[in-house]
Amino acid sequence: MRPSAFKLHAQLAADTFMVGDLPLSRLLLMNDARFPWCILVPRRQGLRDLHELDSADGAQAFVEIRQLSMVLLTLSDVDKINVGALGNRVPQLHIHVIARRTTDAAWPDPVWGSGPPRPYAPNDTEALLNNLRATLNLL
Amino acid sequence: MRPSAFKLHAQLAADTFMVGDLPLSRLLLMNDARFPWCILVPRRQGLRDLHELDSADGAQAFVEIRQLSMVLLTLSDVDKINVGALGNRVPQLHIHVIARRTTDAAWPDPVWGSGPPRPYAPNDTEALLNNLRATLNLL
Repeated sequence: MRPSAFKLHAQLAADTFMVGDLPLSRLLLMNDARFPWCILVPRRQGLRDLHELDSADGAQAFVEIRQLSMVLLTLSDVDKINVGALGNRVPQLHIHVIARRTTDAAWPDPVWGSGPPRPYAPNDTEALLNNLRATLNLL
Repeated sequence: MRPSAFKLHAQLAADTFMVGDLPLSRLLLMNDARFPWCILVPRRQGLRDLHELDSADGAQAFVEIRQLSMVLLTLSDVDKINVGALGNRVPQLHIHVIARRTTDAAWPDPVWGSGPPRPYAPNDTEALLNNLRATLNLL
């Protein structure tokens, strides 16, 4: 695997804000103010499913899921985290890490298929992006 | 954590067949013939979210997701694997590992919320359970 060959899928780029690069994964924030919804994209070209990561990358993916989850849990009123690697529509491996509130628009259903996204107001995005970058040492 | 204190949540027990115990997780098969749909339940009491596993358990969970995915991919016409840890309704950590076909009842949507399960015919369950047990060395 050559990390240098990594190219983010155009659909993921269109739907998200770039937060920064963790050791394995590019961290993205979905442009949907209904949920604090992040996506980890391991920078390995040509993967679609989670099991295609090798053992070392799989362990690192878990570490990054955990670090990101801990940050998301510090946001107001977050009750739990949902994690999913689906990739049915976008054929590049990406791992959803989503902060859920029992009061959110989809609860207790998954966020996928819960209706159209509600884009962030610009100031809200900046605050959340800076929070994520600061707490994950991406500044 | 004391593995000996592990007790499977009643809802998971009611919805599934027991396949066997991998080193970390109890492996279950959802009683829904629409999808080859397995669930890994790490035998650690009191966990709800994936990030609550420690690093060693997280790495082992990844190994078990990968082993199980490779077995599911040998079933007929399977196109890809979906992995998810949601736990919004059942508050015990469990990891869905689902074989998806582009012809299945939910494609390309997630399986959750795709309507009522279709229980297996008894003979079909036995064949699939034995296949899983044999290929995962659970016999």
